[in-house]
Amino acid sequence: MKKIRAAIVGYGNIGQYVLEALQAAPDFEVAGVIRRAGAENKPAELNDYPVVKDIKELEDVHVAILCTPTRSVETYAKEILALGINTVDSFDIHSGIVALRKELGACAKANGAVSIIAAGWDPGSDSVVRTMLEAIAPKGITYTNFGPGMSMGHTVAVKAIDGVKAALSMTIPTGTGIHRRMVYIELKDGYNFDTVAAAIKADAYFVNDETHVTLVPCVDDLLDMGHGVNLTRKGVSGKTQNQLFEFNMRINNPALTAQILVCVARASFRQQPGCYTMVEVPVIDLLPGDREEWIAHLV
Amino acid sequence: MKKIRAAIVGYGNIGQYVLEALQAAPDFEVAGVIRRAGAENKPAELNDYPVVKDIKELEDVHVAILCTPTRSVETYAKEILALGINTVDSFDIHSGIVALRKELGACAKANGAVSIIAAGWDPGSDSVVRTMLEAIAPKGITYTNFGPGMSMGHTVAVKAIDGVKAALSMTIPTGTGIHRRMVYIELKDGYNFDTVAAAIKADAYFVNDETHVTLVPCVDDLLDMGHGVNLTRKGVSGKTQNQLFEFNMRINNPALTAQILVCVARASFRQQPGCYTMVEVPVIDLLPGDREEWIAHLV
Repeated sequence: MKKIRAAIVGYGNIGQYVLEALQAAPDFEVAGVIRRAGAENKPAELNDYPVVKDIKELEDVHVAILCTPTRSVETYAKEILALGINTVDSFDIHSGIVALRKELGACAKANGAVSIIAAGWDPGSDSVVRTMLEAIAPKGITYTNFGPGMSMGHTVAVKAIDGVKAALSMTIPTGTGIHRRMVYIELKDGYNFDTVAAAIKADAYFVNDETHVTLVPCVDDLLDMGHGVNLTRKGVSGKTQNQLFEFNMRINNPALTAQILVCVARASFRQQPGCYTMVEVPVIDLLPGDREEWIAHLV
Repeated sequence: MKKIRAAIVGYGNIGQYVLEALQAAPDFEVAGVIRRAGAENKPAELNDYPVVKDIKELEDVHVAILCTPTRSVETYAKEILALGINTVDSFDIHSGIVALRKELGACAKANGAVSIIAAGWDPGSDSVVRTMLEAIAPKGITYTNFGPGMSMGHTVAVKAIDGVKAALSMTIPTGTGIHRRMVYIELKDGYNFDTVAAAIKADAYFVNDETHVTLVPCVDDLLDMGHGVNLTRKGVSGKTQNQLFEFNMRINNPALTAQILVCVARASFRQQPGCYTMVEVPVIDLLPGDREEWIAHLV
């Protein structure tokens, strides 16, 4: 069987887990890694792979797995789709997904390529569950409760506040889609804790949520990649009320994101040219190997 | 907007809930109902609809929703696909799905039609969740725990045993895919309870499960259409262990099955000719209306 050759674009946290997921997958091989530093100070686990600054330096890439910051996804994806190479990403700005899909869709079609976007766990696998539940109980309310786990966006927002030396913002679900923010910080010298805490609570990221700020000696000691979801829907099927659904996860966050990226990289070869979100891709396309065997086993 | 005209084939329990789901759907109209008795003793809720013995008596049917016993699905589906009309069903013999898909696939393609099979909650929506979890944590074990709820198959098996006047077999989940069977019976005159109970426990449907048989004055007083699922997977994403997933439902069984049938009836118009299981259909195809709006709302 000819393997799918995947390039990892960006080698931060997600990129490292994508490498592991590609190594564990039966149908992939690593075409190489693209990072800003190129091969300079290349980490030991990349010894067997080409590490370059530009995807054009790699041979025979079938799909690029974008592990860059979310705001760089569009630029990288357009560049790579223009080469006729499929792209996948875990773009996570919910309000930007429709526009990104339109932009990359045009580019992908023009180059006979496929792009699958917003493919992480939320947006991503949670979206698949939300969409299915909306269909099978069309009237009702869905709540997505996140955590406990670290929020990247909120942590970055805290770090930007004057006087903060190090920070961690944990998302704590309190039900019905409402979240408490537990913020842990180290202070820069000469700053007053109460003043900094007040500035955090007044920030746009926190002002609408219950927020607690705690001073700690070492934020790094608190870091854990675990995260969770509790997604519920209570709704109506036909004219029958009180249909109850719940989806829960307790997962390593970057490991799950990386595995999902590898799944959609595989699925990209089973779609017509264009741009897709995960809800537009049949779930069976996420799996390697023979379709009939999976149907016999899973359906 | 032109509405989808659906025929209900078979007017038992599921058929009645399908009527409600069609009435509640914004994009469907009821083309008519096919039942063995035809219009004879037609129930009041069917007053506004044609009720006939043969689908050929109905006008302009786009899709037939099969609400017949599972063993009649293949015969009905082939007859209707041959007319170029899409079919959907909730065929539930897991071991027969691959063969049915092949048979109906050939027939559907030959007639430019689409068939979506095994579309209930298990097989069906549970299959979508199982398939997605298998993909996003490729190593590990999935357990599907059913109930508490009535098992149709087991109930029929009890009724077939000599001396049983009325019966109900409840499925009780005890975890890791293992189920207890709670059987409630009324006895025919002249039969010994212990003898009948022993015969039930020795039946192929029950011999491998913990089974309790209870004599009750009136089985009918115990009937409730509620059912449930607890589906779990503990697995590995990439090389990261202990990823935990859980999907739970507490639902009215025929109401959910009916709603899912209506969803796949809609989705059938978005597939190429052929036969599909739900895992082969993008979840967004289950929803009515504009795709981009759903992506903005749900992804």
